[in-house]
Amino acid sequence: MVSGAWPASAETVSEPSLNLGLASYTFRKFSLEQTIQFAQRLGLKRIALKSMHLPLDASPGQIQDAVSKIKNAGLELYGAGVIYMKTKEEVDQAFGYAKHAGLKVIIGVPNHELLPYTEQKVKETNIRVAIHNHGPGDELYSSVNDIHNKIKDLDTRIGICIDIGHVVRIKEDPVALATKYKDRIYDCHLKDVDKREADGDSIEAGRGVIDLPAFLKTMKKINYTGTLAFEYEKDGDDPLPGLAESVGYVRGVIKMLK
Amino acid sequence: MVSGAWPASAETVSEPSLNLGLASYTFRKFSLEQTIQFAQRLGLKRIALKSMHLPLDASPGQIQDAVSKIKNAGLELYGAGVIYMKTKEEVDQAFGYAKHAGLKVIIGVPNHELLPYTEQKVKETNIRVAIHNHGPGDELYSSVNDIHNKIKDLDTRIGICIDIGHVVRIKEDPVALATKYKDRIYDCHLKDVDKREADGDSIEAGRGVIDLPAFLKTMKKINYTGTLAFEYEKDGDDPLPGLAESVGYVRGVIKMLK
Repeated sequence: MVSGAWPASAETVSEPSLNLGLASYTFRKFSLEQTIQFAQRLGLKRIALKSMHLPLDASPGQIQDAVSKIKNAGLELYGAGVIYMKTKEEVDQAFGYAKHAGLKVIIGVPNHELLPYTEQKVKETNIRVAIHNHGPGDELYSSVNDIHNKIKDLDTRIGICIDIGHVVRIKEDPVALATKYKDRIYDCHLKDVDKREADGDSIEAGRGVIDLPAFLKTMKKINYTGTLAFEYEKDGDDPLPGLAESVGYVRGVIKMLK
Repeated sequence: MVSGAWPASAETVSEPSLNLGLASYTFRKFSLEQTIQFAQRLGLKRIALKSMHLPLDASPGQIQDAVSKIKNAGLELYGAGVIYMKTKEEVDQAFGYAKHAGLKVIIGVPNHELLPYTEQKVKETNIRVAIHNHGPGDELYSSVNDIHNKIKDLDTRIGICIDIGHVVRIKEDPVALATKYKDRIYDCHLKDVDKREADGDSIEAGRGVIDLPAFLKTMKKINYTGTLAFEYEKDGDDPLPGLAESVGYVRGVIKMLK
């Protein structure tokens, strides 16, 4: 800085932009250390852990080790999931885990009857819960609409993790749902699928049936400040190239939205 | 088709679009067979071979084997290069190789004094030559302007392979050059570089300093029908993820140009 009179924060005045991240389930066959390296290589700064990378029954010390590894790699551990909560004990465990790890959000699936208890824990901890839709065959929350019906009268810190692959597999429209529930979307699983059917499979972003330009435009329009977390389920033994192609595609589209 | 009265070619009436391909130099540390698999995985249909994947002194039988492998994989072998031609014998060898392989274009660097002989071979064979700019330090064709100065009065089948990385390293503008020489651009090495300096290095597309949206928009505007061949020089031992990210990025940008 030449002059102290200039606002020192010039670089920090930025446009609202979309934040990309990684759902670690993508690397379910790899270690936490490898997963961190892959995220670094792709320039994905935010990460949400699935339990194979940090078990739900990990001790506070083990959680702290994982948190340190992620932080030291220059990444932000913002969430964890998908965490299924079928009992009160599992709700307690999830919130304890989240608290020790310093998470902003639990991407979770609480049983319907546990929603009041989940709400109580949210109030106690100020940790958000983003409930995850799982498409056809999911008895709890197959559609984002199901989630909203169950949470609309609960604490607003209970919201939605919109998984657009499962949205499309149940033949609903991610753009319409994101617009409708814009105030309650706290996480997003970003992906593409090869067909608009229950048996649609994960595919490299841009090669499938999801209108990602329209979805990303919508997320920008609603000023979504959460994470667009890539969850790439194809090629479990070697997901890096397909994930990289997906990340590139989404960055190309976002570049053009500016 | 329900009725013979419908035009049978409905699907073939398509917008002019940009064609992506692979410069096999990207996989210089891998075999031809591996390179073919990588191109298939990324959905890159067009390929130009560098000599490590098919030596310039290969026999007609060896050339035929390589051509068959590529064709059987569903790819098109459209060119080869970069081929340096410092003697008349090397010009003869390059055209013999191209003829046996059925190439549309030689991506080449003929010595200046061999340009008349190269023109004679182009007339004999009807195989195009796309001369490749190599940026700072290249004594023959450091700039695309140098190429044009040398070829402007030659047979129009002698043209340019615009390597936009080397264009930017010499601080010229790929958009201006592509527009200026639109009728003579027969191949393109698509890439990004990390700085607009002679020592700029290859980087994943979208992470560097090249305005790829502007360049791709220009190539579409000039109705470029050649190949945009990815030449990804970073991570020679493991280029697939970075190439995949680059392919995804370019597809995302192109999607938004439609």
